[in-house]
Amino acid sequence: MSDNRIQIFDTTLRDGEQVPGCKLNTEQKLVIAEQLDALGVDVIEAGFPVSSPGDFKSVEAISKLVKNATVCGLTRSLQKDIRVASEALQYAVRPRIHTGIGTSDFHIVHKFQSTQGAILERAYDAVKYAKSFVEDVEFYAEDAGRTDNEFLARVCETAIKAGATVLNIPDTTGYCLPHEYGEKIKYLKENVNGIDKAILSVHCHNDLGLATANSIAGAINGARQIECTINGIGERAGNTALEEVVMVLKQHPDLKLDTAINTSMLYGISQLVSDNMGIFTQPNKAIVGANAFAHSSGIHQDGVIKNRETYEIIDPKDVGVTESAIVLTARSGRAALAYRSKKVGYDLTKLQLDEVYAKFLDFADKKKEVNDNDIHQIIETSKIYNEISA
Amino acid sequence: MSDNRIQIFDTTLRDGEQVPGCKLNTEQKLVIAEQLDALGVDVIEAGFPVSSPGDFKSVEAISKLVKNATVCGLTRSLQKDIRVASEALQYAVRPRIHTGIGTSDFHIVHKFQSTQGAILERAYDAVKYAKSFVEDVEFYAEDAGRTDNEFLARVCETAIKAGATVLNIPDTTGYCLPHEYGEKIKYLKENVNGIDKAILSVHCHNDLGLATANSIAGAINGARQIECTINGIGERAGNTALEEVVMVLKQHPDLKLDTAINTSMLYGISQLVSDNMGIFTQPNKAIVGANAFAHSSGIHQDGVIKNRETYEIIDPKDVGVTESAIVLTARSGRAALAYRSKKVGYDLTKLQLDEVYAKFLDFADKKKEVNDNDIHQIIETSKIYNEISA
Repeated sequence: MSDNRIQIFDTTLRDGEQVPGCKLNTEQKLVIAEQLDALGVDVIEAGFPVSSPGDFKSVEAISKLVKNATVCGLTRSLQKDIRVASEALQYAVRPRIHTGIGTSDFHIVHKFQSTQGAILERAYDAVKYAKSFVEDVEFYAEDAGRTDNEFLARVCETAIKAGATVLNIPDTTGYCLPHEYGEKIKYLKENVNGIDKAILSVHCHNDLGLATANSIAGAINGARQIECTINGIGERAGNTALEEVVMVLKQHPDLKLDTAINTSMLYGISQLVSDNMGIFTQPNKAIVGANAFAHSSGIHQDGVIKNRETYEIIDPKDVGVTESAIVLTARSGRAALAYRSKKVGYDLTKLQLDEVYAKFLDFADKKKEVNDNDIHQIIETSKIYNEISA
Repeated sequence: MSDNRIQIFDTTLRDGEQVPGCKLNTEQKLVIAEQLDALGVDVIEAGFPVSSPGDFKSVEAISKLVKNATVCGLTRSLQKDIRVASEALQYAVRPRIHTGIGTSDFHIVHKFQSTQGAILERAYDAVKYAKSFVEDVEFYAEDAGRTDNEFLARVCETAIKAGATVLNIPDTTGYCLPHEYGEKIKYLKENVNGIDKAILSVHCHNDLGLATANSIAGAINGARQIECTINGIGERAGNTALEEVVMVLKQHPDLKLDTAINTSMLYGISQLVSDNMGIFTQPNKAIVGANAFAHSSGIHQDGVIKNRETYEIIDPKDVGVTESAIVLTARSGRAALAYRSKKVGYDLTKLQLDEVYAKFLDFADKKKEVNDNDIHQIIETSKIYNEISA
């Protein structure tokens, strides 16, 4: 693999799924895993096998199904976790165990009531034990974002000595600034003995809206794996959004960092995950939101008509957004309806949209998909039609 | 004003409102403007007066209403635009005209069929003309993100010579990377003659998910005004989210950059804008999403119980999120319902949530706000109750 290849580690089915009320069943997970494999992700984190019999079953089923990607299972630094994960992964073509422990003072003192020395020992033992089952072992230093760089470097060296192939440096609380996080990766790249034996991985959270920028800063400074989820879903403000980091790298060829992602599948898989988890993306979500490629102001429309690149830097087709890809259903939001109404000739005010949207929801409840002709019908039979057509 | 004070320029009512189907009427704009003034923003961009009689009326009404913030009106570099804006702003305590022109080759060649020399002349004339009406004139170099730094510096010098007090450097297409954008601001700070006579302003778009990071990079490198919108609303993937940049600065006192924002109002104003525009925020939206402070996984809950700072870096109260602030209505999403159900003791699966959510919507249609007792009632009368309580 080239030095400039960034591996995409998708954790939609593990970290992404930790959202209240949004648990997926095994069947749903298999559908998503199959699409992730087709999308071209390098690693699918399929679950946390010891956490429940359901999660074990899902990881096992995904291991049997996936043809190309590495399938990964999460564990704590406990032998039982690791043993159970290795069982769940036994049918995988490319299995990976992802083990680790908290390394910041917050975790060492408050969560484990432990010491740095004891944490190093547990890290070594966990990786060594995981290596007895699989060749590919990723180690995470939880809350690395708030871990002192010098101690973090010692943790990384210890994990490498025990055989870790990947070192995950998570910004667990979404606290880091991009330049700080980039410097942390650079520090590790320059100060960890044996760093060439493993690749550095970034795993960022979006609590301050910086997950994408932090991940890119990590890659620029030497990380070669990005952990992310479709639509940036996950606990609290979520994880790094896969579609965003992939498109940043694609739109910035000057960075000379590539992924293997087939970007024209991004919009479809965004919809798939959103539908299955029941978590909508807001209209102004980057890359996959209903409005991501919509223009409303007169100035911008004029500019776009003259030359698409004046205002749009991404060709919607590159991420799989075509006219026909935007399908209206009972789950569609008001913005999507307004956008589509405008496309077929009705520029609705907020109050007009209120009426049309209520009618639209009634209609969409009966008919699964709503097309352009349906929109004409809905609007022409609404009370505001004279007002609009006047 | 201290050297470390970052001015917050809110453009929710101008750039934010350019979303299909989400136009606000004057009354709605006045309610939001009043809250923005109370929130402590330094500048309220109230509209684009020449664009329509409605926009003119809104800017005029906001000018009369607002007590503390500067009120700003947008114009192109045309005399008519500037004259009309000055009329709309005549009652403002602190009026500002925001004028400018596209400076990238994309704009100069494709949109204006013009030359760099002619653009410099138009920039000078526009600012000079605006100065004949008001003292405070902000100049924007549209698509500055893709404008060559050397030419951009000449544009800035020209605007300063004509009397500009603020220089807005927009990343109009959301294309820049944080380190590039930061370097652009640094270049201008170091290479524009007379730069001390004006302040640099950042105006970023979120097409690649980098608006917050770019704005912060700009501030670190010398910009002293950030242009943003509540909830990051705006065309396409939207603008920089006000709540994100403000909380980044607050959570990183080491940057020594302050704003005057009363952060405990952030959640309330997010809801106000969302309700009025009919644009929901996704559950995983940073700072103001329904899940931004929610924890579901056992590991995380355990950590949070032991010490809130283990996993949460922001105290929810700091942004106005209290138990009672999260009110469920017919507009609430599934995630908010799931979160609240969990709080009152029901950990619903995706399928269970499907049933409860349908009942909830029926209920919420009749009763405006749904409280914890109502949730017990909804769940206890649902088919899945035996399953859950078993």
